[in-house]
Amino acid sequence: MVKLVAIYKHSPDKHKFDDYYDNVHTPLARKLPGLRRLEVARCFASPGGEARYHLVAEMYFDDRDAMFAALKSAEGKAAGKDVMTFAGDLVHMMFADVADGQAIAR
Amino acid sequence: MVKLVAIYKHSPDKHKFDDYYDNVHTPLARKLPGLRRLEVARCFASPGGEARYHLVAEMYFDDRDAMFAALKSAEGKAAGKDVMTFAGDLVHMMFADVADGQAIAR
Repeated sequence: MVKLVAIYKHSPDKHKFDDYYDNVHTPLARKLPGLRRLEVARCFASPGGEARYHLVAEMYFDDRDAMFAALKSAEGKAAGKDVMTFAGDLVHMMFADVADGQAIAR
Repeated sequence: MVKLVAIYKHSPDKHKFDDYYDNVHTPLARKLPGLRRLEVARCFASPGGEARYHLVAEMYFDDRDAMFAALKSAEGKAAGKDVMTFAGDLVHMMFADVADGQAIAR
């Protein structure tokens, strides 16, 4: 399993950002071919005070080939173009191999 | 669902870092009371070149109370102390509400 991790810095207008993210960007991201799971999390604090990022979005794919094919697709290009219009200065994206995602057995 | 997101910058000695992370730190993190899932991912690239972070670790809990109780426990203090010894200058931790973790139905 691999994932595309998108981390967003704090926007000056957090409400507007969240509204756009949920109602415009997320529906585009959901269309990515081969997407297995989308997880969106909003950071509310850090042990040291303010969290460095506002939002962490993760898009899971079966493998690297599937992830890169999704990004090269028409849907991937549309989502990529969209993210640059509303968060080009806020977002950093990383490709990651998921080493461990096990539930904890107790 | 909430999670503690720990992002680690690149270490000068990546091999040593990974070895310590997997064999010393992860077993400590797994002992956190109330931990529902631990996911470790290693970033291998960014659309713009190098990923800003080397490793993204996520620890999931049922709610904020459970997460903070875990961190205040003896196991939480041990894991927190450990992370500061091997990655105090590399790690940033964030508390996040998980807004959406659904699988994609096709």
